Amino acid sequence: MPDSGKVAVLVAGSWGTAIASVLAENGRQVCLWSRNENQVEEINTEHRNRRFLHDVELSPLIRATNSMEEAVNGAEAVFIVSPSSAMREIASALKSYVNEDTLLIHATKGFESGTLKRMSEVLKDELPMYDPNRIVVLSGPSHAEEVIERCPTTVVVAAHDKAAAEKAQDLLINSYFRVYTNPDVVGVEVGGALKNIIALGAGLSDGLGFGDNAKAALLTRGLAEIARLGTAMGGSPLTFAGLAGIGDLVVTCTSRHSRNWRAGSMLAKGLSLEEVLAQMGMVVEGVKTTQAAYLLARKHGITMPITDELHQVLFDGKDPKTAVEDLMGRGPTHEIEEVAKQLQTDWLC
Amino acid sequence: MPDSGKVAVLVAGSWGTAIASVLAENGRQVCLWSRNENQVEEINTEHRNRRFLHDVELSPLIRATNSMEEAVNGAEAVFIVSPSSAMREIASALKSYVNEDTLLIHATKGFESGTLKRMSEVLKDELPMYDPNRIVVLSGPSHAEEVIERCPTTVVVAAHDKAAAEKAQDLLINSYFRVYTNPDVVGVEVGGALKNIIALGAGLSDGLGFGDNAKAALLTRGLAEIARLGTAMGGSPLTFAGLAGIGDLVVTCTSRHSRNWRAGSMLAKGLSLEEVLAQMGMVVEGVKTTQAAYLLARKHGITMPITDELHQVLFDGKDPKTAVEDLMGRGPTHEIEEVAKQLQTDWLC
Repeated sequence: MPDSGKVAVLVAGSWGTAIASVLAENGRQVCLWSRNENQVEEINTEHRNRRFLHDVELSPLIRATNSMEEAVNGAEAVFIVSPSSAMREIASALKSYVNEDTLLIHATKGFESGTLKRMSEVLKDELPMYDPNRIVVLSGPSHAEEVIERCPTTVVVAAHDKAAAEKAQDLLINSYFRVYTNPDVVGVEVGGALKNIIALGAGLSDGLGFGDNAKAALLTRGLAEIARLGTAMGGSPLTFAGLAGIGDLVVTCTSRHSRNWRAGSMLAKGLSLEEVLAQMGMVVEGVKTTQAAYLLARKHGITMPITDELHQVLFDGKDPKTAVEDLMGRGPTHEIEEVAKQLQTDWLC
Repeated sequence: MPDSGKVAVLVAGSWGTAIASVLAENGRQVCLWSRNENQVEEINTEHRNRRFLHDVELSPLIRATNSMEEAVNGAEAVFIVSPSSAMREIASALKSYVNEDTLLIHATKGFESGTLKRMSEVLKDELPMYDPNRIVVLSGPSHAEEVIERCPTTVVVAAHDKAAAEKAQDLLINSYFRVYTNPDVVGVEVGGALKNIIALGAGLSDGLGFGDNAKAALLTRGLAEIARLGTAMGGSPLTFAGLAGIGDLVVTCTSRHSRNWRAGSMLAKGLSLEEVLAQMGMVVEGVKTTQAAYLLARKHGITMPITDELHQVLFDGKDPKTAVEDLMGRGPTHEIEEVAKQLQTDWLC
């Protein structure tokens, strides 16, 4: 019988800690799992998570532990907020502690390297006894640094099972954290992952001093290529017009909080990928996601010009300025052939 | 027989002068019309338009005049880049100088007060001898301050007549100014006009210190209400996903150059609408557009929550903070019912 008041959050990065704070604000006992003993100690004694969230004071309802068993046992819901590279290992370890009644929610934005699987597919692989329709994905425009300061924020929770999405909504919603349900698991996962590629590109463009007009063009074309791959993978085009699509894309490409944007702007200044990753000291999901999307585009026969250019910058040493100029300089053309079709004009005759 | 090298631009505001600079860069003789004699003198002798573009040096191919006849006679193309409130008067005055071979392009973002007509409809009213299918509208994410500095920029030209749109594209396109054609005149005009409302709202939200998460939510919902009204008026939903929709919306809501954003942020600081307009000293199209969209939404039976809240702030003295909170605080709901329909899930049973 799960304790109705307890929820677990794995792991204690910036977004995991921000989600823990929302849950604590809503009166839940939150158990935050971390492998790092110093971090566990800091959270439990000083109510701080300084590496990720500077001097913000955390709720006393948040307790940290480095025992996954202690974190998850008796929890009615488990939030997985890990780097994408850690998802399979965490899911496998979870197997012994969750049961079919536990609500599983993940907020990880990326694909698994090698298999190119979405995060909910990795969870499904590792937890075969769990009903995959009840796996919930949480996404949307939500910088952790603002959520923890109670700035108004909107997010989406998606699951095939409506009751599961509504249970996640119920756990999280409050006056500053608005939660919308959506049935499109694929669209919400793909939108959240791919926006990090465009954020890297936006950082490149800004770092090169190309201005707001160029960045707006990049975002517009970026959304188009996200939606192209996302719909080919089974997502709904409407999801990409929503919070997990354009909403998350805008916030990631225009905010000073985005680490993918920062990585792109450092690349533009001439640093190598290795130097950028070393200086950041945090996971930059957009780098691995560019590789995954590059392969997924080929698998699905989709054109993704921004992803292709970034792939060349990241992995083939292409000059960032040449890459952005190549993106801008594609030949004169009609903006959207589908518009002409849809309006039944004679433009296409 | 029109002189193939000459084009006219009316009037010499910041965007008109930036378009004149693109045309001059492409080797055209540009005649820039202004009613202000000092401005004409400054442009012709000092190659500066300081009121709008500070100390930027203009091309010697740009010549100013306060005679509309002199500006337009013999021009193969006439660009109208006026405030929306001046469109009818300018169009009426143009009647004596343009003929059926002149290419007419407007880049004015707004509706006519009272009639609620789009700008191309006003042109059609006043120039009955001119083929309305050849009227071109120019829009997209393009701050004048960046275009005049040759920052990479993308725009859309739309006309019912494909050859007219392509002629406009041909006049404007160069290495930093990329021009895409689109057959959707209604969508491009409505997108360009309505984004100024959302920019006012984004300025309010930023001015109140609500953060990037809140602004991303506002943009996402703003795009949805722009597309709702725009498609009801006959535009294509795909246009709102393009440069004249999301592209222009993003640049206007996130850039320090946007005067609508600035007006919103001043309202948030407690200034009255009159004080804001007096301090700006330039036309703030979003104010009149909010009134027009409020009436158009009622005419077409469309829900526009952001427009409604801004209408109350601008014209009924509603407190900006309460308005933004009311927008954020709408009840828990499903994000997009259409997603469920489109994916044929059982969410709607």
